[in-house]
Amino acid sequence: MSKKLVLNAFLMSTGHHEASWRLPESDTTAYREVSHYQELARTAERGKLDSVFFADSPSIFGDLARRPSETIEPALLLSAMAVVTTRIGLVATASTTYQEPYNLARTFASLDAISHGRAGWNVVTSADLKASANFGYGEPPTHAQRYERASEFLEVVLGLWGGWRDDHRVADKAAGVFTDPSRVQVLDHVGEHFRVRGPLNVARSEQGHPVIVQAGSSGPGIALAARYAEAVFTAQSTLEDGRRFYAELKAAARKAGRNPDHLKILPGLVPILGSTVAEARALEQQLDDLVVLDLPLAQLADDIGIPAEQIHLDAPLPDDIRPSSEVQGNRARYELVVKLARSEDLTVRRLLLRLGSGRGHRAFVGTPEQVADTIEQWFTGGAADGFNIMPAVLPSGLEAFVEHVVPILQRRGLFRHDYQGTTLRDHYGLPVPAVRAAELAEVG
Amino acid sequence: MSKKLVLNAFLMSTGHHEASWRLPESDTTAYREVSHYQELARTAERGKLDSVFFADSPSIFGDLARRPSETIEPALLLSAMAVVTTRIGLVATASTTYQEPYNLARTFASLDAISHGRAGWNVVTSADLKASANFGYGEPPTHAQRYERASEFLEVVLGLWGGWRDDHRVADKAAGVFTDPSRVQVLDHVGEHFRVRGPLNVARSEQGHPVIVQAGSSGPGIALAARYAEAVFTAQSTLEDGRRFYAELKAAARKAGRNPDHLKILPGLVPILGSTVAEARALEQQLDDLVVLDLPLAQLADDIGIPAEQIHLDAPLPDDIRPSSEVQGNRARYELVVKLARSEDLTVRRLLLRLGSGRGHRAFVGTPEQVADTIEQWFTGGAADGFNIMPAVLPSGLEAFVEHVVPILQRRGLFRHDYQGTTLRDHYGLPVPAVRAAELAEVG
Repeated sequence: MSKKLVLNAFLMSTGHHEASWRLPESDTTAYREVSHYQELARTAERGKLDSVFFADSPSIFGDLARRPSETIEPALLLSAMAVVTTRIGLVATASTTYQEPYNLARTFASLDAISHGRAGWNVVTSADLKASANFGYGEPPTHAQRYERASEFLEVVLGLWGGWRDDHRVADKAAGVFTDPSRVQVLDHVGEHFRVRGPLNVARSEQGHPVIVQAGSSGPGIALAARYAEAVFTAQSTLEDGRRFYAELKAAARKAGRNPDHLKILPGLVPILGSTVAEARALEQQLDDLVVLDLPLAQLADDIGIPAEQIHLDAPLPDDIRPSSEVQGNRARYELVVKLARSEDLTVRRLLLRLGSGRGHRAFVGTPEQVADTIEQWFTGGAADGFNIMPAVLPSGLEAFVEHVVPILQRRGLFRHDYQGTTLRDHYGLPVPAVRAAELAEVG
Repeated sequence: MSKKLVLNAFLMSTGHHEASWRLPESDTTAYREVSHYQELARTAERGKLDSVFFADSPSIFGDLARRPSETIEPALLLSAMAVVTTRIGLVATASTTYQEPYNLARTFASLDAISHGRAGWNVVTSADLKASANFGYGEPPTHAQRYERASEFLEVVLGLWGGWRDDHRVADKAAGVFTDPSRVQVLDHVGEHFRVRGPLNVARSEQGHPVIVQAGSSGPGIALAARYAEAVFTAQSTLEDGRRFYAELKAAARKAGRNPDHLKILPGLVPILGSTVAEARALEQQLDDLVVLDLPLAQLADDIGIPAEQIHLDAPLPDDIRPSSEVQGNRARYELVVKLARSEDLTVRRLLLRLGSGRGHRAFVGTPEQVADTIEQWFTGGAADGFNIMPAVLPSGLEAFVEHVVPILQRRGLFRHDYQGTTLRDHYGLPVPAVRAAELAEVG
């Protein structure tokens, strides 16, 4: 069987479009209802998608006035979604910046246990000022500091996950021995940022340990991804850029001694679907007309270092903006935004609308056939192993994708007709990782 | 309607008895299956119990060789249990020692949102050496340090929970305003241990915020409980001790300016049930015969500061043990263990078996009628507002309690026939807490 596409559904309250909640169809209380997310998981599973995904930050999301800004802890949501599904993968972002590795390792191992091997962890560092203020920092740690910590954090988490052999459970009732202690190993990590003895109090799952996902596309982000990531959520707007990034990251993985097939590259795609092009365009227009630009403009002004009053909405982005080297926040994202404006020669208004429709990810407006075409083109053209599908409106956008786009991809032989396995690693085509070397000390 | 008993089911893998997993009936893989816990929650709800509860520590539980030692993160389990129930309260322990208050406030607020107001947080500090070694500490922080941090931690968590007014959501589609930002307040906490700006990214639930539970019975533990706790899990063995503790804590709550009815005192009770006394005693004997004493003896030796070789199993506890003032770990528990041995004149063997059957909590062996009698005696005798029921074996011990003891309590008018409300505060009879004072700064 030839290689299949990976399709991940990136979920977000009423949808990725900033104004999605203002559509007549949108239920403005659903974002806080676990049943809303359970239904989305069921829809994704009906479409045989690989996984669902929640982004996350330990702070208010976006602007309170302009959209649902609460974010229920995603691991808790995914646990509730795990128990109404049997196959769909369950991925959440968690930051290495404001947590302890033991706690995070345990949360994701627990989700992996509850779901019988369907968990994934999107590893991020937090640059957000709003987040840092919730953890005692005036300024967030620098880009370099965050990535140094992230790298050691990952080593600790992987070490903790690898501390239980799969044959640890003896459960010999007659002898009174439950676990063979020699099959569970302490970690005894002593590093720059962490000292962690272990073992973790949750053993491995059917897939070994959760899939490692990464989303940073800056220099250190790519280095981290090449070494650790098994899937990468990225944001290229053109086929050419997609191909370049794909080739670069696969080469980096190869150079790091890894099989590049074991690192899945998944660009973001915001499909805005209609049964005709005109219908799709009308939906896009309806959404864009509902975006209020005052606050995004203030945010952009802050990012580029030019007062909002001096920015003209219907002119291109000014030339004298802040260079990305002076950005301490999400540098890759800043570069992406600037590049988007320049390469497509967008006015500030168009740029802000593009950001509002999927935060800079590639939007595609068209029929199911056309969406399937672009997916096929990128997939067969060496720019993607699959896509991070970001419905502009939920639940309708995911339903439309599953009902109308997935069957086309299946007919073309690009996507599975049914799941071939039960774990997220089965779906992505990733190997089960080994446990740590047996020479490590036993539990004292 | 007269005041009703509070009944909380304290859940633990295959049961609280150390050897429960060795019974022929016990499923030695169930402890890792979410369906096991979902079924326990359904059973508790069938019995109209107030709540279920998981203890927790960020380390291996007990001894790997002797019992299931994995512990799936309890908030994730409770989330999965919330979605298959509609009334039962969902309480978990989480430590203030090795987490950030923003993260913990968010986890429990999320559980409260998912369950529509059924969450509770059992606030503990961690003295465990095994836990401290997972968070970079050689020695755990001292008793005083832990309680100082816990007190500020609680202030931060309560402050974050109180930052959203209940009318925050405007959801005005026409005007494009989702939340009224003036109804969400930052906290701007600056203290000895924490600097936390807020607001939390999860708003309040139907019950305001999660119920605060506390379990420490040391001096600082009682002071903390008097000030903050809405329910207290405690461990008195005799009616006399129960009355003394009850009176002391209610007086302390009164002195702290609180209504003592809003602090529910729930002693632990390990019921070992049989349809006759002989049948109950046979079950107890069967369980005790399966306990292996080598490791509990080593643990006791370590606690009291006397080598295991010098301790005689069939003699009383030696006189020259370590004074509790030299204990940096769980001091109240140490005192309880020593008092249990002395007051009941137990041999070391009997003491270890008592600890193995419910870690020092009061075990009661008898018929359902007798268990109901002792519950009634403590409840009407000023020693308890209800009980923390700790089944020795699960699921059978909880099923037996629900099927045989609950109906007796209902017939006697001591316990509800059906839920009168939907939230945990409704069940416990606790008020919905107010939001923070409105003079706090608005979100910047």
